[in-house]
Amino acid sequence: MAKKNKSALQEKEGVSISETTNKASIAAIKQKRKTKLDSNSLVTSLLNQDITALGRAITLVESKNATHKAQANTILKACLPHANKSVRIGITGVPGVGKSTFIEALGKHLTAKGKRVAVLAIDPSSSITKGSILGDKTRMEALVKDDNAFIRPSASGDSLGGVARKTRETIILCEAAGFDVIIIETVGVGQSETTVHSMVDFFLLLKLAGAGDELQGIKRGIIEMADTIAINKADGNNLKQAKLAQVEFKRALHLYPEKASQWQPKVTLCSALENQGIEDIWNIILDYVSTTTKSKYFQHNRLQQNTFWLIQTVENQLKSNFFSTPKIKKALQEQIQLLKNNKTTPFAAADYLLRIKD
Amino acid sequence: MAKKNKSALQEKEGVSISETTNKASIAAIKQKRKTKLDSNSLVTSLLNQDITALGRAITLVESKNATHKAQANTILKACLPHANKSVRIGITGVPGVGKSTFIEALGKHLTAKGKRVAVLAIDPSSSITKGSILGDKTRMEALVKDDNAFIRPSASGDSLGGVARKTRETIILCEAAGFDVIIIETVGVGQSETTVHSMVDFFLLLKLAGAGDELQGIKRGIIEMADTIAINKADGNNLKQAKLAQVEFKRALHLYPEKASQWQPKVTLCSALENQGIEDIWNIILDYVSTTTKSKYFQHNRLQQNTFWLIQTVENQLKSNFFSTPKIKKALQEQIQLLKNNKTTPFAAADYLLRIKD
Repeated sequence: MAKKNKSALQEKEGVSISETTNKASIAAIKQKRKTKLDSNSLVTSLLNQDITALGRAITLVESKNATHKAQANTILKACLPHANKSVRIGITGVPGVGKSTFIEALGKHLTAKGKRVAVLAIDPSSSITKGSILGDKTRMEALVKDDNAFIRPSASGDSLGGVARKTRETIILCEAAGFDVIIIETVGVGQSETTVHSMVDFFLLLKLAGAGDELQGIKRGIIEMADTIAINKADGNNLKQAKLAQVEFKRALHLYPEKASQWQPKVTLCSALENQGIEDIWNIILDYVSTTTKSKYFQHNRLQQNTFWLIQTVENQLKSNFFSTPKIKKALQEQIQLLKNNKTTPFAAADYLLRIKD
Repeated sequence: MAKKNKSALQEKEGVSISETTNKASIAAIKQKRKTKLDSNSLVTSLLNQDITALGRAITLVESKNATHKAQANTILKACLPHANKSVRIGITGVPGVGKSTFIEALGKHLTAKGKRVAVLAIDPSSSITKGSILGDKTRMEALVKDDNAFIRPSASGDSLGGVARKTRETIILCEAAGFDVIIIETVGVGQSETTVHSMVDFFLLLKLAGAGDELQGIKRGIIEMADTIAINKADGNNLKQAKLAQVEFKRALHLYPEKASQWQPKVTLCSALENQGIEDIWNIILDYVSTTTKSKYFQHNRLQQNTFWLIQTVENQLKSNFFSTPKIKKALQEQIQLLKNNKTTPFAAADYLLRIKD
């Protein structure tokens, strides 16, 4: 009898359901069909540049639910042949440098040219404070209202790695939805710039004149990553100082070793508030894309980035698989106790743990 | 017959060896007894502060030979109860800052006080250039001749991780051989400072006055790690500028967040060449040790370091175990090809590789 109950066979309409039909199986099959249909129609709408469909797909990518994850993978796979055709721009700078105003000015400049622009954010603090740097959409009012712009607050997550994965998958979805330019914003904190740098084609650092690096909290490594430094708020009384800073940065950049892209980083002035210098920066980006496409660095860099994320993901999973088993957790605590009492070395303890796994 | 040959039984002396005695087994047993004896007597000599025994033990630690490695592990285990009693000092600074002269001055100052001093080095470039920063021992002539000093050039290795392991194990051997102070030298290149910082109690940064950070090639992160910054060559015409640099650094250090040790980093002047300021620096180190021992940070930090190295070793082994199998190597290349043709995402590729392993 129990065996018979496993059947998912459903009777004709009008005929009562046989007692041997398993209702749970019917529900599961229906759900599966519905999900499949949903994924297909979602992809179709997304490829037709439907913003609602894009939003729903991103929500699936961000979900922790296993069914949603599987659905997200199906959607991503369907989107892949239509992705990879945008220019991906990373923008960083400390709070107060005018990132939102700048992104709005650049975004409006591009939509006026008929481009479609998506703005995403990576916010390392959001996982802790539950805040979000793009959460306050009112900061980009004109861009929010623009039909050719799509603004998405930063994905939240337990780790920067998790946030990064969601952002990278979101880039693919946005590209499949026909966005020509993807802007990824971050603040100059922790490892987030390195993360953004590893997923964009062009990295722009916004700075202010007058304030030293230390006061601006900018780490040296970030200057090394920049393809262009734009000194913002170069207007009114600031202009003279901004020009001095430009000379200084140009000189400083010559001290850095040549980039793998062989691109010589530019230092430029702008005033996002007065909408000045924005076109220059866009032209620099176009120049960069055309130069590095010709030299094949552009394509090479994207493959390198993909390989990096592949390896990173595998490594993180290997670690978490190993350290999350109860046996290892217990043994690790015991070995740490032995270390505390100088009864073992870290290397002997490591060998011991690795032998357990085998 | 074949079975009988497996016996390792040896006849009484004067009686010829029976044909059924397996000579290979005899040799193996003899070798094992000899090795065991060697390890025991090596440890005894080492604990009796025999420098030759210490040198031989370090050579075993550095060896890639499996038998040597096993012997090294036996020796390390025997040494552990006698280790961990020194002060471990990391010293860094760019080439030309006067590290060798400084270490010699500090070393002589300590041996004059009856301390025994071991000097080791971590040289990230040695694995590539086959050079060694302590290779040229003539740079520390007075210390080399000192019976209470032991100088060992940097271990070579394929990776910084490998060099680090050897150096950490060498520290244990030196401590067991009765050295009170272990100095670990490195140059300001790549990740080597972080590595040294993760194996010492006290981290000293040597600087020169006048040259900016950029010219000195010092990364910001290194200043954050320093427990004391010593401005060297603060003599003659340099003295005034050195004093100005001291004020500047003191101010700059206040901008950094408080250290986990709650120790406020000092900025001091010295002239290794003129043997000035050396005693001050040793007194700062003694103050640091006594303050952090009282607050229990000293012990806590050593356990943290040991745990860090334990985890690092396990993680590196997990990665290398995974990626070195032929199956994974082949699949990785295939996935990278799919990435190149935009037929997969890094995350889908990672999931695929991880499923192979299972």
